[in-house]
Amino acid sequence: MKYCFGIDIGGTTVKIGLFSASSEMLARWEIPTRKDNSPDGLLRDVKTALEGCLTERGISRTDVLGVGITAPGPVTEDGILHGTVNIGWGDVALGKEAEKILQLGTVRIGNDARVAALGEYAYGAGKGSKSMLMITLGTGVGGGVIQDGHILTGFHGVAGEIGHMTVDPYETLPCSCGKKGCLEQYASATGMVRVAKKFLADWSGETLLRQCEITAKTLWDCAKAGDCAANEITDFVCHRLGIALANAAYLVDTELFVIGGGVSAAGDFLLEKIERVYRANVFPHSRDKKFTLAKLGNDAGIQGAAALLLKP
Amino acid sequence: MKYCFGIDIGGTTVKIGLFSASSEMLARWEIPTRKDNSPDGLLRDVKTALEGCLTERGISRTDVLGVGITAPGPVTEDGILHGTVNIGWGDVALGKEAEKILQLGTVRIGNDARVAALGEYAYGAGKGSKSMLMITLGTGVGGGVIQDGHILTGFHGVAGEIGHMTVDPYETLPCSCGKKGCLEQYASATGMVRVAKKFLADWSGETLLRQCEITAKTLWDCAKAGDCAANEITDFVCHRLGIALANAAYLVDTELFVIGGGVSAAGDFLLEKIERVYRANVFPHSRDKKFTLAKLGNDAGIQGAAALLLKP
Repeated sequence: MKYCFGIDIGGTTVKIGLFSASSEMLARWEIPTRKDNSPDGLLRDVKTALEGCLTERGISRTDVLGVGITAPGPVTEDGILHGTVNIGWGDVALGKEAEKILQLGTVRIGNDARVAALGEYAYGAGKGSKSMLMITLGTGVGGGVIQDGHILTGFHGVAGEIGHMTVDPYETLPCSCGKKGCLEQYASATGMVRVAKKFLADWSGETLLRQCEITAKTLWDCAKAGDCAANEITDFVCHRLGIALANAAYLVDTELFVIGGGVSAAGDFLLEKIERVYRANVFPHSRDKKFTLAKLGNDAGIQGAAALLLKP
Repeated sequence: MKYCFGIDIGGTTVKIGLFSASSEMLARWEIPTRKDNSPDGLLRDVKTALEGCLTERGISRTDVLGVGITAPGPVTEDGILHGTVNIGWGDVALGKEAEKILQLGTVRIGNDARVAALGEYAYGAGKGSKSMLMITLGTGVGGGVIQDGHILTGFHGVAGEIGHMTVDPYETLPCSCGKKGCLEQYASATGMVRVAKKFLADWSGETLLRQCEITAKTLWDCAKAGDCAANEITDFVCHRLGIALANAAYLVDTELFVIGGGVSAAGDFLLEKIERVYRANVFPHSRDKKFTLAKLGNDAGIQGAAALLLKP
């Protein structure tokens, strides 16, 4: 039997999955993310973890096909991870570094959001579709485009980075990326809270939102409960989201849109609000686009990382 | 020697090109566009024209590899031309129809803007690049994305339709497509004239624009001549264009942007204004994107149509 590993490098933990060559997840665990000015220490921690797993299960190194790794920044087709300010590594040939250190066969790397999209395409919400765009509504807004089973990487490794599309050319506040009017400023969990607080400063009516701490979750819960203010706020957020996805339809025109990330727990209620705006902002014959919720949750990264190696 | 034809169906004329199998354009002429509620009459006119050409040059039908045709609407991968309101045909299997009527081998069809982009990619401004997005600034704003020599078609045939990306979510006036805030409302030749007239209604200073009929050409000529009002107007237009291309970079991230259409006669002066906005609205490592002017002019359509058949 042959195996591979899927590794998802997060800001706090590194998620690790052991997979069979037929894509079955056999084990899943986490180790803390070592923070350093190069990936070497982190990769050595991963090496220790993977070797421990092989020993424990009596798997020979030669039965490991390889390792797929998500990288926290843009990855170009030459395997370079670029300018990862947040993790402090600079530009690094992460795949080659990992091959040298791990000594467990081929290493393939991809941007974390794009790899999560590949995971959903191969094993989750996108299974059976020709092409999809996944948008992840979490602390930030990430995204990835999959065409015929392959990640659309793009020339600078930023294809699918829908969170930094400008959706409001009049915005005066800067996004964390430095520019103004990014989708992320309205549609990330933190963006939604910001939008809600700004809205409530001018709202004189009653609202459940004044009786709780405002988070993306309480905002959506209140909207579902019929709260007027929460519905106006979520309508505004979904207007931005619907426009961004309509714009995406005019550029990459995938078969399917998959909505993931923590905020997607709001479910069909969220999907319907986005779809309504989407349909009002595209040509008539593009209105039947499929929208669906992500299925793999936090495992999309390790499953996508495995899919970098295994043809599903 | 083998040959093929490239046909570009326009609103007024059908442009026809005869090409050698090595992509050399041997002849180029036009016939009037017959307007009818089906493409049959037009295709029969084309048949007559192509057969006349073959007879005149003593070319045998069996030496014709096939015919590439541009279609005035979205074309899906099944070869269907969709809902062409402007030309009045409805949904039609144009390629199959043309194969039956022309009897000149394989017929391949593609959307006109996308095929023009393929022409520039194969024989013009995009030659040698890996991927490109072409935007055409004419009466409308068209576009097309080419990846590794292939048109990005998309699920509904609208990939690359950048003119109908929403760039202003607060716009109150409708676009010709029915929705509001499309790039085309600001960046097409007619859009630019509209923007200029609106701007001048509130402009109390002097301007050369009051001494001439306002067209996209006079607007850009005045801006180049240093006219303040014309520069403010063109800056605004290029802000919309720069944002739209930055958004495109975050979705498809092509190596190259090619600017074509009548307005692109404004040349490097236009390119520089767009690039400045683009660079201010993308991640640092995406700022070195290449921008260039289209090279093939009105022949991009027939050359792209030939490229549908001939591997360049």
